[in-house]
Amino acid sequence: MHRRLHFCVATTVYNMLAQCQKMRYNKDMQLDFSTRMNGLNGNATREIFKLLTRPEIVSFAGGLPSNECLPIEEIAEISNTLLKSKHATRILQYGTTEGFVDLKEALLTHVKGVGITNQTLDNCLVISGGQQGLYLALSSFIDKGDVVLVENPTYLAVLPMIQGFEGKAVGVNATENGLDLADLEEKIIKHKPKMLYVVPTFSNPTGKTYSVENRKKIAELSAKYNVIVIEDDPYSALRFEGNALVSIKSFDTIGNIIYISSFSKTLAPGLRVGVAIGDAHIIRKMVILKQSADLHTSNLSQAIVLECLKQNLIAKSVKKSMPIYLQRKNAMVAAIQAYMPKSFKFTNPEGGLFIWGEFEKGVDTVALFKEAIDKNVAYIQGQVFFAENVHKQVDALAYKNTIRLNYSTETPSSITSGIQNLSKIFS
Amino acid sequence: MHRRLHFCVATTVYNMLAQCQKMRYNKDMQLDFSTRMNGLNGNATREIFKLLTRPEIVSFAGGLPSNECLPIEEIAEISNTLLKSKHATRILQYGTTEGFVDLKEALLTHVKGVGITNQTLDNCLVISGGQQGLYLALSSFIDKGDVVLVENPTYLAVLPMIQGFEGKAVGVNATENGLDLADLEEKIIKHKPKMLYVVPTFSNPTGKTYSVENRKKIAELSAKYNVIVIEDDPYSALRFEGNALVSIKSFDTIGNIIYISSFSKTLAPGLRVGVAIGDAHIIRKMVILKQSADLHTSNLSQAIVLECLKQNLIAKSVKKSMPIYLQRKNAMVAAIQAYMPKSFKFTNPEGGLFIWGEFEKGVDTVALFKEAIDKNVAYIQGQVFFAENVHKQVDALAYKNTIRLNYSTETPSSITSGIQNLSKIFS
Repeated sequence: MHRRLHFCVATTVYNMLAQCQKMRYNKDMQLDFSTRMNGLNGNATREIFKLLTRPEIVSFAGGLPSNECLPIEEIAEISNTLLKSKHATRILQYGTTEGFVDLKEALLTHVKGVGITNQTLDNCLVISGGQQGLYLALSSFIDKGDVVLVENPTYLAVLPMIQGFEGKAVGVNATENGLDLADLEEKIIKHKPKMLYVVPTFSNPTGKTYSVENRKKIAELSAKYNVIVIEDDPYSALRFEGNALVSIKSFDTIGNIIYISSFSKTLAPGLRVGVAIGDAHIIRKMVILKQSADLHTSNLSQAIVLECLKQNLIAKSVKKSMPIYLQRKNAMVAAIQAYMPKSFKFTNPEGGLFIWGEFEKGVDTVALFKEAIDKNVAYIQGQVFFAENVHKQVDALAYKNTIRLNYSTETPSSITSGIQNLSKIFS
Repeated sequence: MHRRLHFCVATTVYNMLAQCQKMRYNKDMQLDFSTRMNGLNGNATREIFKLLTRPEIVSFAGGLPSNECLPIEEIAEISNTLLKSKHATRILQYGTTEGFVDLKEALLTHVKGVGITNQTLDNCLVISGGQQGLYLALSSFIDKGDVVLVENPTYLAVLPMIQGFEGKAVGVNATENGLDLADLEEKIIKHKPKMLYVVPTFSNPTGKTYSVENRKKIAELSAKYNVIVIEDDPYSALRFEGNALVSIKSFDTIGNIIYISSFSKTLAPGLRVGVAIGDAHIIRKMVILKQSADLHTSNLSQAIVLECLKQNLIAKSVKKSMPIYLQRKNAMVAAIQAYMPKSFKFTNPEGGLFIWGEFEKGVDTVALFKEAIDKNVAYIQGQVFFAENVHKQVDALAYKNTIRLNYSTETPSSITSGIQNLSKIFS
């Protein structure tokens, strides 16, 4: 096991994935895969997780909620009550693709928390995690060659999705306060994108949050140029400092914004439940696609989320978790300030799971990944989050001086020693 | 509610779905959906279910396991134990896309029951219901214009899926014993299909079962011409008469057959768990696509299925259900013989959920659907199961004299009176 892990981490994530492509096919069979599979090598972070099985590794590579924050006892109690109630039959039988009506009603109330009002059941779809929402939204609109604008850097997993629909991701520059609006408008005019994908609150990977003014302007610009916006919001409830902001969707005047959220970070990712809110015509297309994709979301998971919403358990659980996350973020910030080179720039988020860092030009987080693993620390190389890199070769990849650091799953003392070890490699 | 239902059922399923297309878009927004959405109007049976809310309706339209057969108490007990055990954290946290390793091991043992041996973990993927397996398999191979051969008639939901990948479904004739092998070979040579999709045991919609010899020949022909086969097997465990047969996959010599099964009919559809078994290279592509589609299947559902397999609960539950299904099938066969026109030809399956019927030419099950609903009986018009009809208009549809009748969800006396009422319309 150790030998194998060692071998694997000796290559970069991309090299590892490239090797999967070289597996020899059965000599008796030709496998003529679809065009959409070209260059689709699997999500790098999903692959790296499988390598991180050594318990001594301090992992800043994940994007998971902390195990200690999962409300296990409460969910066990709820699940037990549900399956012993009159609801058991509807939970175990087939359901509608749209999701339970009472869950959808609860979700419409839930999203009022981010300023989304005046929505009906036809505007709401229960999804099997936020990931499925992105997939269905992209599938509804993206044809070969269509452009999707994304913040640079952006959520890693959306890039292969866009590629899978043979679309093209184009990066938009960002500032401290959100998207660079001049760059956004310029790229809208230049590329005529069908969609814009953003994670405006506690972004993955940067931890940054768009200002209210920036959100409003994104809504206005996208409406002006008829661009469909996917607002991906898995993190906004995970706020441990500062004031909550309304969503971009709350500024939607023409129905062009699809809001997607998830209970993976606030309740339990293993349940795979999220919500999509959008124009009824768009939701209808997503429903049609979901019929083929998985028929419907697990009813047991839906029923558990509904009951958690009814009992206000999600808000309670998040409230309990936030001091833990804040303590961990503070430990990471303090350790960075104490040990990392002074030239290392990093974000200091008010919530979410990630700190984003930038070393001096020339520092190569890809090449140094092996050394980090040898020192029992894992991280994600920042380059994988950039749209420009999707179609390029390993050695053509830029942004090698960037890094994503997750603080949610390690204790403050592990974080401190992990950053200390990292600093030895990067100084 | 009644008025609305009445209005809806006054049109055919296809007409209803066509109306969804005509909804007016917000005048301020253009919705430029992807090409794959063209003509995708939603699965007709999924839509019809939403109309069947009147309790007085005897529904032969479904494809659900019987509520009485769901092992509710056992699943409640298992779920409760799991969430109170040391496994709770892994159940509620993120999991790998491939599925729990111990579940995959149990599934490899499980599929030995249909003669599938010598498979490793790399040949196995946990899927969110059988539907997702079909979707991922098709997505791995089908490009625009690619042909997928299907039995005529075939599982309704696979047709829009093929359409969604801009592929083309071509129907293969069938006999009592399975596919018409001469027609299959002819169509392979003519269309050079990438894939063949079959439901060889207790087929949806016909209830028919391919002979062992026919299965073997399908494996041989598909290997000879390098056609990937999707063997969809949700029903074979639901056998109440006759002897169990091995799968087509059991005759696979080159790895070109993807076997897909599900626990929706044998345990509980609401959990959304199934399994795909195939060549490791194909499974790898399906894993990559599943990363985008839903990241992974609900861990709670996976853990429940694993525990049910360990406790042999699925076999026990099916054993208890089969006399109930047999009784219902017999009631339907007896009622057909007693009341339906002598010219009505129908299948008499040894398992599964469906009887397939054929009226004399000229009888129109599409036009008569409204009358049936007025008499409180629902069925599925057989024409929707034919590949040739996918792209055609309502009045161009053939096979209007065919009908699918489901017997699993109604009591014997309801079945008798339902068939009696149907016979008044069709005689």
